[in-house]
Amino acid sequence: MADPKSKNITWHDGQVTRSDREKQRGQRGVTIWLTGLSGSGKSTVAVAAEKALHDLGKATYILDGDNIRMGLNSNLGFSPADRTENIRRIGEVAKLFTDAGIIVFTSFISPYRADRDQVRAIMADGDFVEVYVAADLETCEGRDVKGLYKKARAGEIPEFTGISAPYEEPEKPELVLDTGAQSEEESVAVLVAYLKKQGYLSA
Amino acid sequence: MADPKSKNITWHDGQVTRSDREKQRGQRGVTIWLTGLSGSGKSTVAVAAEKALHDLGKATYILDGDNIRMGLNSNLGFSPADRTENIRRIGEVAKLFTDAGIIVFTSFISPYRADRDQVRAIMADGDFVEVYVAADLETCEGRDVKGLYKKARAGEIPEFTGISAPYEEPEKPELVLDTGAQSEEESVAVLVAYLKKQGYLSA
Repeated sequence: MADPKSKNITWHDGQVTRSDREKQRGQRGVTIWLTGLSGSGKSTVAVAAEKALHDLGKATYILDGDNIRMGLNSNLGFSPADRTENIRRIGEVAKLFTDAGIIVFTSFISPYRADRDQVRAIMADGDFVEVYVAADLETCEGRDVKGLYKKARAGEIPEFTGISAPYEEPEKPELVLDTGAQSEEESVAVLVAYLKKQGYLSA
Repeated sequence: MADPKSKNITWHDGQVTRSDREKQRGQRGVTIWLTGLSGSGKSTVAVAAEKALHDLGKATYILDGDNIRMGLNSNLGFSPADRTENIRRIGEVAKLFTDAGIIVFTSFISPYRADRDQVRAIMADGDFVEVYVAADLETCEGRDVKGLYKKARAGEIPEFTGISAPYEEPEKPELVLDTGAQSEEESVAVLVAYLKKQGYLSA
């Protein structure tokens, strides 16, 4: 049997709180919910903002299609009910990361206002920052990096947001990034400046 | 429009990798999967081990009934299919935390070997540490902190693990903590010593 003292384990009562984790990391846990059309630049902004924050010593994570649709939500399709459940689960996971004191980005089209508002509703005030990545349809379709708009126009992708399914713009987002007019660098600078000003980058 | 330079944002290409996060935190991401009967001490061990690691400057988190059953898995019941889906989702979330470079504890009875093995299967080698919290039924029932065994014996709780539903012991857990024979302090010391020896507490 190991002797605790010999293992340099100091014994303390009590549990580690969110505040303890935030103090240790010098930041506040928060969910940065990026919403916008396909091709609007959500992932680009998330990746670049994460890099900027990481270089400031902050603890970050990104939830996106790559790590959610293949894993947690691999048993969901694209029916209306499944789309709502998709966003619900992402919101719950983002809430856990936020509670863990992490700055977590979510990068999903999340076209329905009710779904986004439902996520906001489960979060404490200040834990949910809705960021509208607001390139317009013409800009996004003009980029068409993945060729999805072309396929959607050809009718090969049913219910494609912006073409054959609605995108409901946020009514009161915490931040709007006009990635049609401003550069990637500018968008990231605006986002990081917002987080700094609102006190998320200190604890 | 904000000028990036004026905001002290340094621009870098590329994305933040798991390895980057682990280096920053001086640890390796890992899932510590605690399994055992109700009352075996899973939560006690998780809370105390998290405290010990936090005091060593490590980034940790605990997934347990409190933050999972009320949130992510609030739409699941206790049917066999729902129990399996419950563990599947917890495993997927633990995998995300592990990828984020966090030392994440999961504290669930998780009585079925197939469910636990399925979680192990989605993780990379070394990312999943199965810890059997192995107080025997007599010990757990003797403690009965929440009065659940008494209710189960009275038939008030159907399919209660150990009484009216099976607990399948791990066949090859990475670690066994005999919380019936050893103190809480000793169990935590053994667990932390294991993590240190296996290299999880440095990056």
